[in-house]
Amino acid sequence: MPPSEAKGLCLGFFGILRFAQKDKRGGQNDAPHPVTLSIADTPRPIEIHSERVSQQSLALLGTIGVMEGVPQEKVAGTSALLLNGKAVAQQIRERLKFRVAQLRSEGIHPCLAVMLVGDDPASHTYVRTKARACESVGIRSVVRHYPASVSQAELEAQIDAWNADPSVHGVLIQHPVQKPLDESALLHRLHPSKDVDGITPASLGALVAGEPAFGACTPLGIITLLDAYKLSMEGKHAVVIGRSVILGKPMALMFLNRNATVTICHSRTRDLASYTRQADILVAAVGKPEFITGEMVKPGAVVVDAGYNRVEGRTGDVGDVDLASVAPLSSAITPVPGGVGPMTVAMLLQNTVVSAERLTGS
Amino acid sequence: MPPSEAKGLCLGFFGILRFAQKDKRGGQNDAPHPVTLSIADTPRPIEIHSERVSQQSLALLGTIGVMEGVPQEKVAGTSALLLNGKAVAQQIRERLKFRVAQLRSEGIHPCLAVMLVGDDPASHTYVRTKARACESVGIRSVVRHYPASVSQAELEAQIDAWNADPSVHGVLIQHPVQKPLDESALLHRLHPSKDVDGITPASLGALVAGEPAFGACTPLGIITLLDAYKLSMEGKHAVVIGRSVILGKPMALMFLNRNATVTICHSRTRDLASYTRQADILVAAVGKPEFITGEMVKPGAVVVDAGYNRVEGRTGDVGDVDLASVAPLSSAITPVPGGVGPMTVAMLLQNTVVSAERLTGS
Repeated sequence: MPPSEAKGLCLGFFGILRFAQKDKRGGQNDAPHPVTLSIADTPRPIEIHSERVSQQSLALLGTIGVMEGVPQEKVAGTSALLLNGKAVAQQIRERLKFRVAQLRSEGIHPCLAVMLVGDDPASHTYVRTKARACESVGIRSVVRHYPASVSQAELEAQIDAWNADPSVHGVLIQHPVQKPLDESALLHRLHPSKDVDGITPASLGALVAGEPAFGACTPLGIITLLDAYKLSMEGKHAVVIGRSVILGKPMALMFLNRNATVTICHSRTRDLASYTRQADILVAAVGKPEFITGEMVKPGAVVVDAGYNRVEGRTGDVGDVDLASVAPLSSAITPVPGGVGPMTVAMLLQNTVVSAERLTGS
Repeated sequence: MPPSEAKGLCLGFFGILRFAQKDKRGGQNDAPHPVTLSIADTPRPIEIHSERVSQQSLALLGTIGVMEGVPQEKVAGTSALLLNGKAVAQQIRERLKFRVAQLRSEGIHPCLAVMLVGDDPASHTYVRTKARACESVGIRSVVRHYPASVSQAELEAQIDAWNADPSVHGVLIQHPVQKPLDESALLHRLHPSKDVDGITPASLGALVAGEPAFGACTPLGIITLLDAYKLSMEGKHAVVIGRSVILGKPMALMFLNRNATVTICHSRTRDLASYTRQADILVAAVGKPEFITGEMVKPGAVVVDAGYNRVEGRTGDVGDVDLASVAPLSSAITPVPGGVGPMTVAMLLQNTVVSAERLTGS
């Protein structure tokens, strides 16, 4: 398919998908909606293309798919399964390499465009990490770095250009875009079909409504990691600490779509431990190093640590969970580093490849 | 302001409001965001206009605002406060009458346009109720009734026309629009500035992102009713039974924005009573008559019954809560009828008036 046709497909894309889905609006009363599940928290084409991918990539990768063959290590000295995000992310990247190669053989070079504004060192580090990750699987990345003094109009014109550019399949607006610039206006401007970061209001609204959209990368990575280890969410009590737009809220919605009962805690929650002790699945995004200790966790819980904190005198990131006291109690747990972080990056790559496949009808 | 300018304002409206808000996106870690509260679950202009309304409507209504003077009855034979949605809704309507009169004196006639497709008797009843409610406060309502055989294109052209029509301030697409018609496509087409029902993906996304949008009428009505009785949500455990797009999910998000800790239960929840017994605030949208009984409720709980069920041999709607066994335990409870139902209709009217004020800059 020639690139000139891609734009039209892009614009028609959500409309087409809408015809394929069931009514998610429902009545006032609750109703189970199993059809929603794979749509709302995993971009649909994963399903659509899964057969091709599994058949062809298997030959390449020598595995029977990412759900099989994940490392089954225990946390040292405990019976807790180590949820090895690094290894699962690596398997996903291997698959993506294959899919990218396939696309490139058809003349399509998946491309992620990144907008970076200002000189925040952490933002620069994140962008470099993401660009390198793209490169590692063959995705082209384009980083546009603007000074903090750039005009809103210039940024908006860039978003418009990327929306219209058939050679760009995903756009990431690196947070934060500082005031007086209007980050929200940029997010609204980005076409949902290219929102591979999954955090525009349009993508979040689709998640609530049970419509196809790219999932926010961190919660999508957590769901994917639990899936990789065949840890069911159905009927479980999932407790999420944190209500941010990029983690807590979409995480809760994705767990709901998987038929978990969901509790969302946050900084204003009273007696936090009374909730965390009920969790079959506990996701911590507290922002306090090793805040979650053994006495806050139910024996047998699956514990996901989405924290990364800098602690003076220690090298590297420190999670929100005190592994030493929590791991002996838990049935499965993510490490920091090597747990949620690599999955987040892998999901950004996956969303970008999925977007390239979708936008080009490949 | 001449009507011809209204369309431009309409289109610029969300953009303008975005400049006024703080950054809600936040980092990965949780952070309190008190500024969000009144924005996300109550359309902003209520705040903006509150001074004018409170000063002028007070003189008219002879009260010091809807928060005062609400009936403080007890449920017969108990110490439970009866949350009289009918009376609170009536006070809101009185206020709205004044605001509508004010608008009409400026040559602006608030107007709700309703799209009704097919011959579902319940839908016809709902539309009649809403149209009559509009009339009661001076809002003009326009109902366009289409046969089930109408084409999608004709419906979409109507939505486009209403989006562009400066004399229309709110649009309601009566659910359900049956297949093969695409209700979701209609919702996507409706401009968020006229989505007074608050259930389009754009409005739901704004609710997640903490941006200004019309709140879905039923959960917004519940929040407003609790506010009217000065029942704080801050730090409370709110348990919502139901995960529909029109009630459960936006309800949970609104409670979160009010700093409640929120649990969402649904048909796949195991041991439902173990959750409901923890609720400081319990919202039931189960769809089973008198399903919530005393042994499922914590003493002192605030209980909101969002159910309306038809039961053979009984006249009128029957709620999801067994009032006889629950009221003696609860500190406050809504009746059915006369609780949530009238609040839902009042919120539709309020959203329409707010929209007329916003779109005309009045």
